[in-house]
Amino acid sequence: MPPATLSPAARTYRVQGSVIRSLLKVTQQPGVISLGGGMPSPASFPIDAMRAAYDAELAENGPAAVQYSTTEGELCLREWIAERETAKGVPTDPDDVLITAGSQQALDLLAKAFVEPGAPVLVQSPTYLGALQAFSAFEPDYRVVGIDGEGFRRETIEAGLTDGARFMYIMCNFQNPTGGTLTEACLRAVAERARLDDFWLVEDDPYGDLWYRTPPPPSLRTWAPERTIRMSSFSKILAPGLRLGYVVAPPEAIELLARLKQATDLQTSTLTQRAAARVLRSGILTEHLPRIREIYAVQCAAMLEALEACMPSGVSWSRPEGGMFVWVTLPEPLDSLVLLKAAVERGVIFAPGNGFYAVEPALNTLRLSFSTVPPEKIRTAVGILGKLIREAI
Amino acid sequence: MPPATLSPAARTYRVQGSVIRSLLKVTQQPGVISLGGGMPSPASFPIDAMRAAYDAELAENGPAAVQYSTTEGELCLREWIAERETAKGVPTDPDDVLITAGSQQALDLLAKAFVEPGAPVLVQSPTYLGALQAFSAFEPDYRVVGIDGEGFRRETIEAGLTDGARFMYIMCNFQNPTGGTLTEACLRAVAERARLDDFWLVEDDPYGDLWYRTPPPPSLRTWAPERTIRMSSFSKILAPGLRLGYVVAPPEAIELLARLKQATDLQTSTLTQRAAARVLRSGILTEHLPRIREIYAVQCAAMLEALEACMPSGVSWSRPEGGMFVWVTLPEPLDSLVLLKAAVERGVIFAPGNGFYAVEPALNTLRLSFSTVPPEKIRTAVGILGKLIREAI
Repeated sequence: MPPATLSPAARTYRVQGSVIRSLLKVTQQPGVISLGGGMPSPASFPIDAMRAAYDAELAENGPAAVQYSTTEGELCLREWIAERETAKGVPTDPDDVLITAGSQQALDLLAKAFVEPGAPVLVQSPTYLGALQAFSAFEPDYRVVGIDGEGFRRETIEAGLTDGARFMYIMCNFQNPTGGTLTEACLRAVAERARLDDFWLVEDDPYGDLWYRTPPPPSLRTWAPERTIRMSSFSKILAPGLRLGYVVAPPEAIELLARLKQATDLQTSTLTQRAAARVLRSGILTEHLPRIREIYAVQCAAMLEALEACMPSGVSWSRPEGGMFVWVTLPEPLDSLVLLKAAVERGVIFAPGNGFYAVEPALNTLRLSFSTVPPEKIRTAVGILGKLIREAI
Repeated sequence: MPPATLSPAARTYRVQGSVIRSLLKVTQQPGVISLGGGMPSPASFPIDAMRAAYDAELAENGPAAVQYSTTEGELCLREWIAERETAKGVPTDPDDVLITAGSQQALDLLAKAFVEPGAPVLVQSPTYLGALQAFSAFEPDYRVVGIDGEGFRRETIEAGLTDGARFMYIMCNFQNPTGGTLTEACLRAVAERARLDDFWLVEDDPYGDLWYRTPPPPSLRTWAPERTIRMSSFSKILAPGLRLGYVVAPPEAIELLARLKQATDLQTSTLTQRAAARVLRSGILTEHLPRIREIYAVQCAAMLEALEACMPSGVSWSRPEGGMFVWVTLPEPLDSLVLLKAAVERGVIFAPGNGFYAVEPALNTLRLSFSTVPPEKIRTAVGILGKLIREAI
């Protein structure tokens, strides 16, 4: 019989698959060293605590733990989140919290809620690839804003870039992909500008807990609670395969996002939420977070040392103080996609930089992740990259 | 400080919350009998098997079970689904399967993939409320098609209603809300029409396993495998709080839906998928499904008897042969929303019919669910409704 004609909606052509995910098959081959993915270290997962939590929840609350529940999320988990946000300095009620399927779903709901064709959305450059994937389906008019220690750069404001902006998407702490962190002075200035120009701030903070020596500045919510939609995830402090994230925002934004979540997947798994709440309530983070921070601090140091030792002059890189990523800039006209092809043949994978740009990608950039790779392998992989770059210059 | 101006996208005004979900708070009050929700019976959840499966998976596969994995879903679960579909008569490969967060997410992905402003989408009338919520965000041109034992009614075809249709959304078995099932002759005719007019069929089949005496006809895939996107869920045969559903479709449709799922939530919980696959592989359904069917068959019979005993003449209702719902039509001009208000005061809840219509709602209809209510309470609740209807006539 003849094939059926598939007529996808126009938006589907704007949603590209992630290069990193498409490399997953290569990544899983033996001998390959992947600096490509953003996976947390499996050594950081509290397996025993999760095992005990799932078992206790099913044993004690059996049917209710696997029944439908509310779209907003389980109260036990929302309470824990609200208490933690409050302890960090911004009074937060459980009703200010919406549980999501990882922070990727928060990005999708946000896009559904606010983005429509031609709607201005402010982004950093580079910015998180997953946010661009989620937003692009709804056709925003991306506007890149320059931010420095003083907040928005003057030319951003003079050019009227913020006019009519639905929101600014911003990753303040140990940004994916650059590893960079904004100062408190910058956050205060951004909040002030958002208030003056009346736009919302979307603060994506999956890595804030992964600092090495010093905690990052307080959340953007501290300075603009009435217009900040803060999102985070348990992917990096518990485990990503749970698919558990959350949004903290003023009630009118939560109501809107929850209504859209209902039409999107009804709710996030009741059992997963309750098991996670049990793990968190056990107080495990007090011991667990320092352990995770140590893993990443050691691996980050190994990568920075390896870069110092192996890279030819003309190559520069970021020096993150937390998180999972180092951002590398090659001398022009080197193209990181060309480098990737050669590197894959030598058994090394990384994320080319072009996917992290809303507009005008810098082809000479790349993201290296050290999160799942032991120090000696980091040295080997960076050594191979250094050699390939030397050959290409 | 002044509140921030919230500027939701136009689509958000088309996505209404479910009346049923908004009644959840009332439902949970003691003494209230809810015939409103579509919740499965908690007595049907295989808690012990799930407990053993989560425990074994975390113990044996620890870190990998909670790590990121592929967007398409865990192979162990896709294999089980493919084998079951194949056993039902349509050869199916694991690569023809995409795992979703319940079938609500499949509806959302489908809408993202195919619906855009003004795109014709064919629906039954009434049809599933959750599908309308998911589709409406993307502004389809809904076209109601009449179907009977012969397939599409002649006037549907003569009026050119199928011209340019992106797909037809159809729930063949024990439909939500009516409980109705389409005959094999009808399915064959629908498949033939889809092929002639070159449109896709979206077969939503969450209830197909819940037959009382006789299995329903074979899937639409049997007659049009090249253009059928079949979706189902583990919500009714395992438990809904897992949020686990799936799509079976030709590769080009799976590729498209998977790309969109990546931008939506990256993937469904690795652990949940693996634990469910363990439960299913244990062969539990052989004993478990007959037990569930018996629960619903008994409760459905109780409801049909109660309706017979308590309803005044002029009220009619469906006689489902499976599933969880009975559809009631009141004599005009009675309005089920008015009835609901009176019923809530008497401690009874049901789903008014208006939400189940894409266009031109019949206000004198309502959906009764017997799935979570023991027979004696079904009799009490239907007795109260009968009395209120008598008073209103």
